Amino acid sequence: MTPTETFSVRVKPFNDTLMAEAQQRLDRLTKPLGSLGRLEELAKQLAAILGTVRPTIQEKVIITMAADHGVTDEGVSAYPKVVTPQMVLNFLRGGAAINVFARAVGARMIVVDIGVAAELPAHPQLVSRKIGYGTKNMASGPAMTRAEASAATQAGMEIVEEAIRQGATVIGTGDMGIGNTTASSAIVAAMTGEDLRLVTGRGTGVDDAAYAKKITAIQRALEINHPNPSDPLDVLAKVGGFEIAGLAGVILGGAQQSRPVVIDGFISGAAALIAAALEPGVRPYLIAAHRSQEPGHRIILERLGLRPLLELDLRLGEGTGAALAMPLLEAACKMLSEMATFDEARVSEQSGTQTNL
Amino acid sequence: MTPTETFSVRVKPFNDTLMAEAQQRLDRLTKPLGSLGRLEELAKQLAAILGTVRPTIQEKVIITMAADHGVTDEGVSAYPKVVTPQMVLNFLRGGAAINVFARAVGARMIVVDIGVAAELPAHPQLVSRKIGYGTKNMASGPAMTRAEASAATQAGMEIVEEAIRQGATVIGTGDMGIGNTTASSAIVAAMTGEDLRLVTGRGTGVDDAAYAKKITAIQRALEINHPNPSDPLDVLAKVGGFEIAGLAGVILGGAQQSRPVVIDGFISGAAALIAAALEPGVRPYLIAAHRSQEPGHRIILERLGLRPLLELDLRLGEGTGAALAMPLLEAACKMLSEMATFDEARVSEQSGTQTNL
Repeated sequence: MTPTETFSVRVKPFNDTLMAEAQQRLDRLTKPLGSLGRLEELAKQLAAILGTVRPTIQEKVIITMAADHGVTDEGVSAYPKVVTPQMVLNFLRGGAAINVFARAVGARMIVVDIGVAAELPAHPQLVSRKIGYGTKNMASGPAMTRAEASAATQAGMEIVEEAIRQGATVIGTGDMGIGNTTASSAIVAAMTGEDLRLVTGRGTGVDDAAYAKKITAIQRALEINHPNPSDPLDVLAKVGGFEIAGLAGVILGGAQQSRPVVIDGFISGAAALIAAALEPGVRPYLIAAHRSQEPGHRIILERLGLRPLLELDLRLGEGTGAALAMPLLEAACKMLSEMATFDEARVSEQSGTQTNL
Repeated sequence: MTPTETFSVRVKPFNDTLMAEAQQRLDRLTKPLGSLGRLEELAKQLAAILGTVRPTIQEKVIITMAADHGVTDEGVSAYPKVVTPQMVLNFLRGGAAINVFARAVGARMIVVDIGVAAELPAHPQLVSRKIGYGTKNMASGPAMTRAEASAATQAGMEIVEEAIRQGATVIGTGDMGIGNTTASSAIVAAMTGEDLRLVTGRGTGVDDAAYAKKITAIQRALEINHPNPSDPLDVLAKVGGFEIAGLAGVILGGAQQSRPVVIDGFISGAAALIAAALEPGVRPYLIAAHRSQEPGHRIILERLGLRPLLELDLRLGEGTGAALAMPLLEAACKMLSEMATFDEARVSEQSGTQTNL
């Protein structure tokens, strides 16, 4: 069975012609050539993805997926497992950082229970797609079955497709799950072969003793399960998490529907690493929101060839970095659609030897 | 005469107590300790400046000052001098990058003619405080008189004070002036003693021949005028510009009125260097929006001890970087005022040895 047999993904080839057309338009706008730097690169990417040199963002959506992790039995986190459902309730009441930032930037938030180890009350803002009550402890066996990993990924694809049907122009990813930096570090180690200490950080802020337990747990998970890096779904199942699988699905589904996907931090990055391994065509649809304090995030960004928009030393997750990056996407689109050209504004063009304006 | 005799500046000492109170509140919010990184530092700074642990931004204002530079006679720019008034008209019609970004982030823009070398039509959006029709060519004598530098600085202070009276919570700085990277490089060289080639970039995009002329012009300006680095007003007068002096005034006035001042790029940075030399107390009121592609900007930021919020390789000026940074200031304020505490959200706190939550 090839990894993608369980769900079909068809990502359109990236539209290089529109990139070039957007570049031509950028060079006619009233500013020195290239003077808006990385925002011009972002504008071209958004034009190509959204299929127009004057893209507009109608709706920004952050999809935050929550799940629990059996590996917390190993004492790898600074917070008790019960914090996962408690934080989901905090999301539903609007009191978490992601709620505040999503409101601040005008993004709609979709909260998904994809595997929280608790019964959550029905709530109009909560999408319930529970694959299980947390993963199993990967330090003593596979975190999930291959079928569970596939189902979680499929759920993510369906959720993002529904969000796009309802009008989402841009998708941001987010996560909540005590223990999920441990799973993400294991994924990065398995997929890249990098040294465990280089890809493992202190997550929510563990002390030295818990950090040692975290390293040991990941080491055992890799030894016991032998995740196969050339089979991303195998890695996802053995050392991943329900929310990571779900987010991989969000990324695949977003790219398939020709939407820019703003990748939050380390957990979302691990999901992106899996998604890009399953379908390399997703890569040009990805926008890295920020560079996390988690050391493994740098390695993910390098592997994916992504340069983050923000470097704010965040390490919270939830989609907070993705939300904070959204205004830059809007500014990039508006640059293309609202700025005057030299002709329109009757501004003189560059003199001297550079005549390529 | 001491440099500040010509205008009185009284900046309140920074409120360290409020910084500490804001830190306490941040540590009660539902997130791992310190996990919002530099946004937490920004939140504390805003709390201290605005005098409350729950700061709110009522109005964001970008003050963009335009002026011309006699040194353009030396062939230092890629654009003809006439672009300065043309771009001011573009600002007034709403077609420039700064208009687009200011609208995108909900900031009000104040356009000031502080020394454009052309008659500009009266316009409700244009503040006319013309000190002269462009500076003189600093490569053959002082750019301005000391009285002119002082008057331009005073004008900036008055304009920002009026903006604050009208409700501005946060001030962003911006500039327009063909030739003003040449003046800014001269200021940085004079104030820091750094090598001219380290502080001089290609501005709007000059070719090698014009870059050589730019270096020569600055060299001559420094040799002929002998600006005195221990007398910032002397530096400003001899090798500065009207808009740079005006922006120094905006920075001094903003800090004096206890407002955060978001410093745009290289030109605004040169103004901040002057302002901080005139009154070191302004330093904690400054927020560096971004790191410009202009090489001298890095040196300014180091001297002022500022780490920029954004690194987007911008080199446009106008206040574009300041506008793009505004959503981060709003997110930082809303984090303090809108996020739930662990108690309010009934979320369990950190376990293990770290009990300082």
